[in-house]
Amino acid sequence: MTKEFDLIRQYFAESKHQFRRSEVVLGIGDDGAILNIPPDQQLCISTDTLIAGVHFPIGASAAQIAKKSLAVNLSDMAAMGAHPLAFTLGLVLEVVDDTWVSEFSEGLLTLARQFNCPLIGGDITRGPLGLSIHIQGLVNKDAVIRRKGAKPGDKIYVSGYLGDAALALLVLGHPSHLGEDVRLLQDAPLSDCLTHFEKAYYQPEPRVELGQACASLVSSGLDISDGLAGDLGHILQMNSVGAILNIDALPISESANCCASKEVCQMAALYGGDDYELCFTVPPQNTDAIEAVARGLTTPLSCVGEITSGTVLELIDDTGQRVTFENVAYEHFQ
Amino acid sequence: MTKEFDLIRQYFAESKHQFRRSEVVLGIGDDGAILNIPPDQQLCISTDTLIAGVHFPIGASAAQIAKKSLAVNLSDMAAMGAHPLAFTLGLVLEVVDDTWVSEFSEGLLTLARQFNCPLIGGDITRGPLGLSIHIQGLVNKDAVIRRKGAKPGDKIYVSGYLGDAALALLVLGHPSHLGEDVRLLQDAPLSDCLTHFEKAYYQPEPRVELGQACASLVSSGLDISDGLAGDLGHILQMNSVGAILNIDALPISESANCCASKEVCQMAALYGGDDYELCFTVPPQNTDAIEAVARGLTTPLSCVGEITSGTVLELIDDTGQRVTFENVAYEHFQ
Repeated sequence: MTKEFDLIRQYFAESKHQFRRSEVVLGIGDDGAILNIPPDQQLCISTDTLIAGVHFPIGASAAQIAKKSLAVNLSDMAAMGAHPLAFTLGLVLEVVDDTWVSEFSEGLLTLARQFNCPLIGGDITRGPLGLSIHIQGLVNKDAVIRRKGAKPGDKIYVSGYLGDAALALLVLGHPSHLGEDVRLLQDAPLSDCLTHFEKAYYQPEPRVELGQACASLVSSGLDISDGLAGDLGHILQMNSVGAILNIDALPISESANCCASKEVCQMAALYGGDDYELCFTVPPQNTDAIEAVARGLTTPLSCVGEITSGTVLELIDDTGQRVTFENVAYEHFQ
Repeated sequence: MTKEFDLIRQYFAESKHQFRRSEVVLGIGDDGAILNIPPDQQLCISTDTLIAGVHFPIGASAAQIAKKSLAVNLSDMAAMGAHPLAFTLGLVLEVVDDTWVSEFSEGLLTLARQFNCPLIGGDITRGPLGLSIHIQGLVNKDAVIRRKGAKPGDKIYVSGYLGDAALALLVLGHPSHLGEDVRLLQDAPLSDCLTHFEKAYYQPEPRVELGQACASLVSSGLDISDGLAGDLGHILQMNSVGAILNIDALPISESANCCASKEVCQMAALYGGDDYELCFTVPPQNTDAIEAVARGLTTPLSCVGEITSGTVLELIDDTGQRVTFENVAYEHFQ
């Protein structure tokens, strides 16, 4: 038996944090896992890969890496309106440090249990630190959130607050990929906000309940991983429509307002990555209903603009004036 | 739109090698893919991660990396008796070279089409070269091959030839992880065998048809990725049984016999990795049937030993004499 199997057994398969759910017929320990898919449901699947130094800072803790990686994948389920079912993990480690692996598995499986989404397989290999998570979920055929479907006149909604994750990098002492214009206020009360920003960056809240509850009310939707402007752009392109966003309506957290200028907060919200909030387009007749759903879940949900029959994304402010920022959206292969 | 999306669209989603199958309701281009799972089938899933310099040599071509990576995952489906359905790809690239990505996608999708297993999603990120493939398949509830089930008296069968991939590394000029004792004959006709060994290493034949056809005849099974001794060891441990293997019955290819001594060929078969042949345990009353199935598929299938009521793996030769090799099985975290 090689060390890989010892690790998997000890820290993942037989961890006290591991758990089962009835759809999992066969879990960790074979060449594949087996799942029962209820006949009235469709399978929804997604993959996200995270690499040290690219998707999380080199010095991130094992638990932080674990939670962020799974949260990002859960967010994809939320964006589809899916119910998370189970996931597999491809973990790449430079060296095996038992403490590290133990903390990683504890962080991973604690979040997994919170979403009733057990780990059912994967592998551990040697190489530069990184991981790939593959997640399965269940969707009702008639309540899938797709990117296709937005129509002129639909209102644009976003959940939670935007820009916190991009500002978090600065607060945590890392450079911003948004350029030098994006900086903190000199007299920012950083230590007061540290916990908020750490959580925003490493433990984004997957909006799973919101996605499920809104699936039949929206015309399209996705999760915001690369900044609202870029991600909304995918919806515009796919549906051959335009949009107007009111930058003064963008939801900015109290912590962000404390630590950065209004303009920097807006740039972070539009072009920063890693927020993992949901963006929906909503037909006008459903806006009351979706706002009621969000209130019921006590999830912030803000109307930030409208789909137009144009082809571009226009930014305006509260006075209706057009605004421009230098486009600084994150580019994987700059 | 960032470059990642351009790459995915051009080389994967809209590649002339891409194809659809009816179960795929939604493929590349959204936050998740959607699959219809036929109500009488279970879902079988598996993940394999491959890292440059660990799972394939640094200098491997894009098409070689692509085909090997998908073949390894298809082999997991074969090992479960599953019918491949679809897969996702997490690709990590240091730099984007259009020629490389084009050759990669062509190799990947060509093999995918051969097994009617389309690419339905994934991501491309920046980092050290590597990839993680996640594959879905369908199984009949009553014909799943598991590792659990082997009983004393069951015969042990392996498909194809063993050891070729380990010898291929030497033939291709790479060091062997099996140690210095594993070397080629000085007067080996290497150039004659190069094509055979390149194929063995980079394009292992996923034994998908064999797995499906044998699923209801075997008591347990898996695919051989880390050498027969180590992988059979998983079956022994899981079932609390032992085994006797006749090393003179191990299937050694003609090319291997030309290039290495009998002992080196046997060591490569037992302890070399990357063969991706199937190993089955078969109740005595099913041996005639499974041999007939293999003949029908013109797939080599060799009886190499028997499950015992012991707890260890014993090696014997044709004369019944016990044999020992230094254990040199591959260890991911040596």
